[in-house]
Amino acid sequence: MTQPFPFSAIVGQEEMKQAMVLTAIDPAIGGVLVFGDRGTGKSTAVRALAALLPPIQVVAGCPVNSPTLDKCPEWAHVGQHDIVERATPVVDLPLGVTEDRVVGALDIEKALTSGEKAFEPGLLARANRGYLYIDEVNLLEDHIVDLLLDVAQSGENVVEREGLSIRHPARFVLVGSGNPEEGELRPQLLDRFGLSVEVVSPKDIDVRIEVIRRRDAYEMDYEGFMAHWLQEDAVLRDKILAARAHLGQVQTPDSMLRDCAELCLALGSDGLRGELTLLRASRALAGFEGAEEVTREHVRSVASSCLRHRLRRDPLDEAGSTTRVARVVEEVLA
Amino acid sequence: MTQPFPFSAIVGQEEMKQAMVLTAIDPAIGGVLVFGDRGTGKSTAVRALAALLPPIQVVAGCPVNSPTLDKCPEWAHVGQHDIVERATPVVDLPLGVTEDRVVGALDIEKALTSGEKAFEPGLLARANRGYLYIDEVNLLEDHIVDLLLDVAQSGENVVEREGLSIRHPARFVLVGSGNPEEGELRPQLLDRFGLSVEVVSPKDIDVRIEVIRRRDAYEMDYEGFMAHWLQEDAVLRDKILAARAHLGQVQTPDSMLRDCAELCLALGSDGLRGELTLLRASRALAGFEGAEEVTREHVRSVASSCLRHRLRRDPLDEAGSTTRVARVVEEVLA
Amino acid sequence: MTQPFPFSAIVGQEEMKQAMVLTAIDPAIGGVLVFGDRGTGKSTAVRALAALLPPIQVVAGCPVNSPTLDKCPEWAHVGQHDIVERATPVVDLPLGVTEDRVVGALDIEKALTSGEKAFEPGLLARANRGYLYIDEVNLLEDHIVDLLLDVAQSGENVVEREGLSIRHPARFVLVGSGNPEEGELRPQLLDRFGLSVEVVSPKDIDVRIEVIRRRDAYEMDYEGFMAHWLQEDAVLRDKILAARAHLGQVQTPDSMLRDCAELCLALGSDGLRGELTLLRASRALAGFEGAEEVTREHVRSVASSCLRHRLRRDPLDEAGSTTRVARVVEEVLA
Amino acid sequence: MTQPFPFSAIVGQEEMKQAMVLTAIDPAIGGVLVFGDRGTGKSTAVRALAALLPPIQVVAGCPVNSPTLDKCPEWAHVGQHDIVERATPVVDLPLGVTEDRVVGALDIEKALTSGEKAFEPGLLARANRGYLYIDEVNLLEDHIVDLLLDVAQSGENVVEREGLSIRHPARFVLVGSGNPEEGELRPQLLDRFGLSVEVVSPKDIDVRIEVIRRRDAYEMDYEGFMAHWLQEDAVLRDKILAARAHLGQVQTPDSMLRDCAELCLALGSDGLRGELTLLRASRALAGFEGAEEVTREHVRSVASSCLRHRLRRDPLDEAGSTTRVARVVEEVLA
Amino acid sequence: MTQPFPFSAIVGQEEMKQAMVLTAIDPAIGGVLVFGDRGTGKSTAVRALAALLPPIQVVAGCPVNSPTLDKCPEWAHVGQHDIVERATPVVDLPLGVTEDRVVGALDIEKALTSGEKAFEPGLLARANRGYLYIDEVNLLEDHIVDLLLDVAQSGENVVEREGLSIRHPARFVLVGSGNPEEGELRPQLLDRFGLSVEVVSPKDIDVRIEVIRRRDAYEMDYEGFMAHWLQEDAVLRDKILAARAHLGQVQTPDSMLRDCAELCLALGSDGLRGELTLLRASRALAGFEGAEEVTREHVRSVASSCLRHRLRRDPLDEAGSTTRVARVVEEVLA
Amino acid sequence: MTQPFPFSAIVGQEEMKQAMVLTAIDPAIGGVLVFGDRGTGKSTAVRALAALLPPIQVVAGCPVNSPTLDKCPEWAHVGQHDIVERATPVVDLPLGVTEDRVVGALDIEKALTSGEKAFEPGLLARANRGYLYIDEVNLLEDHIVDLLLDVAQSGENVVEREGLSIRHPARFVLVGSGNPEEGELRPQLLDRFGLSVEVVSPKDIDVRIEVIRRRDAYEMDYEGFMAHWLQEDAVLRDKILAARAHLGQVQTPDSMLRDCAELCLALGSDGLRGELTLLRASRALAGFEGAEEVTREHVRSVASSCLRHRLRRDPLDEAGSTTRVARVVEEVLA
Repeated sequence: MTQPFPFSAIVGQEEMKQAMVLTAIDPAIGGVLVFGDRGTGKSTAVRALAALLPPIQVVAGCPVNSPTLDKCPEWAHVGQHDIVERATPVVDLPLGVTEDRVVGALDIEKALTSGEKAFEPGLLARANRGYLYIDEVNLLEDHIVDLLLDVAQSGENVVEREGLSIRHPARFVLVGSGNPEEGELRPQLLDRFGLSVEVVSPKDIDVRIEVIRRRDAYEMDYEGFMAHWLQEDAVLRDKILAARAHLGQVQTPDSMLRDCAELCLALGSDGLRGELTLLRASRALAGFEGAEEVTREHVRSVASSCLRHRLRRDPLDEAGSTTRVARVVEEVLA
Repeated sequence: MTQPFPFSAIVGQEEMKQAMVLTAIDPAIGGVLVFGDRGTGKSTAVRALAALLPPIQVVAGCPVNSPTLDKCPEWAHVGQHDIVERATPVVDLPLGVTEDRVVGALDIEKALTSGEKAFEPGLLARANRGYLYIDEVNLLEDHIVDLLLDVAQSGENVVEREGLSIRHPARFVLVGSGNPEEGELRPQLLDRFGLSVEVVSPKDIDVRIEVIRRRDAYEMDYEGFMAHWLQEDAVLRDKILAARAHLGQVQTPDSMLRDCAELCLALGSDGLRGELTLLRASRALAGFEGAEEVTREHVRSVASSCLRHRLRRDPLDEAGSTTRVARVVEEVLA
Repeated sequence: MTQPFPFSAIVGQEEMKQAMVLTAIDPAIGGVLVFGDRGTGKSTAVRALAALLPPIQVVAGCPVNSPTLDKCPEWAHVGQHDIVERATPVVDLPLGVTEDRVVGALDIEKALTSGEKAFEPGLLARANRGYLYIDEVNLLEDHIVDLLLDVAQSGENVVEREGLSIRHPARFVLVGSGNPEEGELRPQLLDRFGLSVEVVSPKDIDVRIEVIRRRDAYEMDYEGFMAHWLQEDAVLRDKILAARAHLGQVQTPDSMLRDCAELCLALGSDGLRGELTLLRASRALAGFEGAEEVTREHVRSVASSCLRHRLRRDPLDEAGSTTRVARVVEEVLA
Repeated sequence: MTQPFPFSAIVGQEEMKQAMVLTAIDPAIGGVLVFGDRGTGKSTAVRALAALLPPIQVVAGCPVNSPTLDKCPEWAHVGQHDIVERATPVVDLPLGVTEDRVVGALDIEKALTSGEKAFEPGLLARANRGYLYIDEVNLLEDHIVDLLLDVAQSGENVVEREGLSIRHPARFVLVGSGNPEEGELRPQLLDRFGLSVEVVSPKDIDVRIEVIRRRDAYEMDYEGFMAHWLQEDAVLRDKILAARAHLGQVQTPDSMLRDCAELCLALGSDGLRGELTLLRASRALAGFEGAEEVTREHVRSVASSCLRHRLRRDPLDEAGSTTRVARVVEEVLA
Repeated sequence: MTQPFPFSAIVGQEEMKQAMVLTAIDPAIGGVLVFGDRGTGKSTAVRALAALLPPIQVVAGCPVNSPTLDKCPEWAHVGQHDIVERATPVVDLPLGVTEDRVVGALDIEKALTSGEKAFEPGLLARANRGYLYIDEVNLLEDHIVDLLLDVAQSGENVVEREGLSIRHPARFVLVGSGNPEEGELRPQLLDRFGLSVEVVSPKDIDVRIEVIRRRDAYEMDYEGFMAHWLQEDAVLRDKILAARAHLGQVQTPDSMLRDCAELCLALGSDGLRGELTLLRASRALAGFEGAEEVTREHVRSVASSCLRHRLRRDPLDEAGSTTRVARVVEEVLA
Repeated sequence: MTQPFPFSAIVGQEEMKQAMVLTAIDPAIGGVLVFGDRGTGKSTAVRALAALLPPIQVVAGCPVNSPTLDKCPEWAHVGQHDIVERATPVVDLPLGVTEDRVVGALDIEKALTSGEKAFEPGLLARANRGYLYIDEVNLLEDHIVDLLLDVAQSGENVVEREGLSIRHPARFVLVGSGNPEEGELRPQLLDRFGLSVEVVSPKDIDVRIEVIRRRDAYEMDYEGFMAHWLQEDAVLRDKILAARAHLGQVQTPDSMLRDCAELCLALGSDGLRGELTLLRASRALAGFEGAEEVTREHVRSVASSCLRHRLRRDPLDEAGSTTRVARVVEEVLA
């Protein structure tokens, strides 16, 4: 079994990597939407993220990855088990998945053989304290996306069917990829993702050669290649852990709140999720950089990822949403 | 487990808060429809309402929250149980919910194992004496909305299927939210909601900052924030309880009946549900304010919420329904 | 448990009340279609009808309300039971009802546990000798409407499926309400209803006030209100019972047959159901008024209800069907 | 239990009555399609037909109405039973009927309890040696119509599913009614009906009065009315029985074959079913009239019923198909 | 039980009869598509074919009609059985048939009662060594047609589902009829039929009379009619058997291969199935005629049947496909 | 049982044969899409491939064809079994296949009888270490194609449903055929196939004759035909085995990486899968030819197969994709 391609070895794609790192620091930022052409390494990046993420302490055998025995759900009958270290879970949501498979369901077989109603946990249980990845999220049925966003926001999965009444923690970051050419998410759903990033194929010939060279080396010289890049990954992982610890101490001056609000008002983004995400992402970036307080530079740096997917279509403005956010950032944060 | 964001700490959105308070005083006013952009805190408000509502006395273990043992349904086999105090139930109706899940159904498992037809109560049982919340009610299937409105009006849930013949009280207020841009309810259904309110994102920069500040305080300084606002909630709750007690004594002069009828006739609202709702909502507001009788000011104050969703489309009148109601109120109640 | 709003306390809506009374005198007239705006009290009226209707003698425990033990269906295993007096059944047909639920079906549970094929009677059994009410009949599936009209006409429900071969009497009057703006019934189905009536919101301000006043009195002063109106209902009920007894003696002069036929021919109504209904409804009205024979006045009085829903669309005649019937009645019965 | 309205008491509608009588003489003529407005007594006529038809000798208890014990299907386990006289079966095909219900199916219950594969015969078994009536045949699913026509033609029902391999005789005449305004049958299916007739509401006032008078007498003076008309029915029944016995002796001169072929060629009817039906129907009519051989008058008399539904649409000929057949009959059989 | 109408007694329709005879000589030619108006005797012809075909030797009780015991499939548990002579199977594929019914499926009942996975063979098993007839093949679902053509080509039915892994021989000739006015087959499917023929109603009056005369004789004088024509059928059957025996000795000169290839190239038919079919059909015709080698006359004689359904639409060539094939045959084989 | 038509005996179609050979040398190149007219021998070629491919060593009884006992999946309970030589598996994916059948599923029967959850492996298990063939891949449901490409890329099949959690190796090459006229694959899916080839009917008369001659010889002189061509197949098989062994030693100069990148950039192919496939296919071709390093000639030779299906539609460039690739290859690799 080989390990996935290392996160640090991904050439370019800085915005996507930043977004993933920020949600690793503060999962409350919410999910990440990755828009982009096919073949731009979106799923490679998510698999790389799995290996980069800091490990977690879990009760062995606990279906929801609880850190201590008292937090394991009652219905799981975990018993006495050791605390072990595990990789941060990254769960793949297969296309065409059923709601039962996502939220969990009655274990029919157990019900039939033992006559007892047992709960069969779903993908949301396994994703607790980790990431849930959806390839081509725009092809998923709306009610599943809706359900995932609901749970991601509340941090709790509630299953009530066939006489079962189950709750369990389900705190995870949703990562969805999509090709905007193949159908769009409803604005209602877009708005509930924290960040969005765009990835494109590199146009520079040397960058492209570097990408192929690294992929070829990964396949033809696996040992040597990994020895180098896993070290890079370790450095990044330590920086994430430090940012997490530091996050509570980062100050948010009132002027920054005003900057966030003015930016959103100027962009005409509906609702107030934009401001809140901007605030959290800026603070996480400040934490990552070891800064004492959030600065205008932090806000500027995450504005595109936070706001791009919350704009209303403006038929009079032909610029793409990335350009529109950049222009307004220039004006408001001048 | 943290408590939801306090009702009193919601910035602005006075019409929505008034509507929720009035139905807490007189549930016969009927359900509330909340229209609004995404991200305007509609679901936050409903969760806040849960904590604000006065607690109820229930028989422990009774599936329909009966106040006394003799009112527990026979099929529930409640047995000897204490009377306990519970939070007013606020039940969330998940999108894509089945009719069985809503009204209750035969407990298949019990039927198979014990050969006896047992009733598995649904969400309507749990909502008795409380609130039933539907996010994006416009996306729910018509026949479910219809069924919910029927039960909400009759106060009784009747289940007849597979040999079961079950009735239980199901008195609740329906709260539905919806984004009018994503599809509309049929007029037939609209008319059966008591009140409707519109919520919009605040356009004032300081209001927006205040919203973010409170949300950030709620997350970063939970203890301090709650200490302050739960006190405000308690004041509001006492006022609601006083209004309930006083409601029977509020007088309704004949001139007020005439005002209600003239208003509806001038607006050309179909049917007579408009007048009745106007009468009840005005009386509840009078009760909330401790007034002896309903005055024209009370009628004026609730007219928009009561009538806005009952207007026919008028292709010659480009004004929105809120404006049309306001204009007619000015003329008729001048 | 409170009683429904009294039939006599309904303000106006004379045509609808007449139609309901006539079918109470001679159920062979067939079903009643009630067209009208939302909020005009259609379902209130049907519930009121339930309380108005004369009680029937039934064998206690008989699933089809048989008047004597020998008429109870064999499959019901009724045993020795007393004859008791019951309210005329008024059964509500829920939207989205299945065919099994309507006609009855194999009792699966009994079949599985006892290995015996038992019949689980449906709504048609319960409606025998009474009324079956369908709110928004235009939203019901055609094949269910068709089935209901078939049974209503033949007076017998025949169930043949899964080895069951069950027949039972199912004589009832179908009452359907519908908002013509929300979809129409196929002409084929329309024609099979006996009568149709139109209800509209009153446009007179004092009538509207009277409606609200009575509804408010019903809710705020239940005891006093009922004391008065139930007496009125009792008078009406006695008149219906007298008309039923008298119906066989009412004469139908040949000139009246000719009037009916000429009216239908002049209106160009398809088929001959129009004439027959006109004849029966006129005779029932004569009975209600205690007249010796049917007169032209009786025919005139029920013509609209009998014929309005049987006209072909006439693209050159812009008048509504009520007006068209009235005009032809004027010409033919001048 | 009252008997249906007598066949002879039907006013007018001669073409329909002739078609029904002819198929009673020679069922090989094939099914009858009855086109017509609503309310023209189509289903009354079919129910009347049931009472008119000559009784048949059947083995009591045989599910396919076999005339002798050795013809009862093996799977029916009929045992020793008497030969009894029964009314010719007339089976009603309910709208929305399933294929299983039509052809018969595995008796699931018996399979589950006794572990043996028993066949539960369907409507086709019950219709053997009689009539199968489909109201609004144009609303039935094509594959069911197809199946019915297949069986009607082959006279045998073959059921092969779930390990069952059952055959039983199913000789019946299909009678379908339909309103051409509500959708048409595919030409492929039309062509497989033997005869078609058109019924319209009478336009003559005295005819209409006579219709109502008879219907009213049937309801108000049942005994007297039936005493008269059942005698008429008996006369007609005897004439049918005589025609059946005589049919084999009716001669068909070559000139008649040529007449049939020329008529069909001139009308451009596809295929050769037209000629064959014309031949059979003419012969049955000759038999009914006690004639020695088929004459041009017989052909002329049944031509419309035999050919009307087999014409191709001719966009240049605006005449209806009845007129077109009549015109060509005039020319060819001049 | 009467026998079907004899093959030899079919008037005209020479192309269809030739196609059926050729596939009886060499089944590798592939299926036959019969296009034509309704009522042209397509299904009569197929039923006639059943009686014409030479009988086969089969193991009694073998579900796939194996000629010797060792070729019976293992799953059939045939046991010791005699070799008997049977009519060549002609299996009718009912419209709306399920895939399970076609290919066979797990015998659910046996699985439930004995806990053993038994295979319930389908129509493909019964059709082995015979014919499979599909009326209105254009109405069958594509995936079933596809499956049938696959099996017809490979001569083997492979069933893998629910843990079953079954193979059995299924060599048969597919005969499909269709009315091109009611929908077409995809070109992909058309191409996989070996031959296609067109049948039309005869336009000659004497031919039509002859058709009716024979059908009428078949019904009115069954014995005499069959005595004559079954003798004709026997002659034809002997000729088919002789051709089968002779087929391996028929020579195919290189010039004939070139003729076939040039014909297909000139017609622009896709792929090479056209040439191969032309070669095989010409050889079978040569065998039928007792010729030593395939001649240009044989190729010419079958060209239409082999190629007509493989042409691409040519928008510039208004001629029908039969005409186009004839024209090219004239040019290439001049 | 006859063997399929030999791979070497296929006349022409060099591009398709090269693609199949290259994936036999390096399966990491990915699947092959074969576009072409009907009747061009696509499925013959795949069946021929099955016989050409080098045999593999497998544990007898192992459901995933493992080479050694320790690699057999635990759930298979293989036990002690010999290592045997088997033909490389070529699995046919039937149209309309279910997902369960593809990935494997719970063995319901075992679950019901033994109460134990057993895994019933699917087609992916059987395809491990071989080929999976899909005829008319464009007609398969997207989510199945997606799933197949996912597994083909990861080399592992993960099944998680109904309490099962199964993984097994599933390394195979996907070969899909399709007629572009009958619907296209989404670009998203196209891009995930490694190679694509186009096959057309030969236009040269002698080539066509040669094709027919060989097919006819295969059928009429099977023994002689196979004796000759199986020897040719053996030579080709040895060359493939040698190339596999040599593949690791083939060098890839930097200039070749640049060539690949420049080619893809010039063609504007999205993503970087094009470059990687080009690199791998060139290297496999070099290995097949026994070359020491990849040369520009190798890149040129496989460019069409690698890139043709990855171009964006260019509305201004009317040339087909094959021509566009050729033109750019000329310019870039001049």
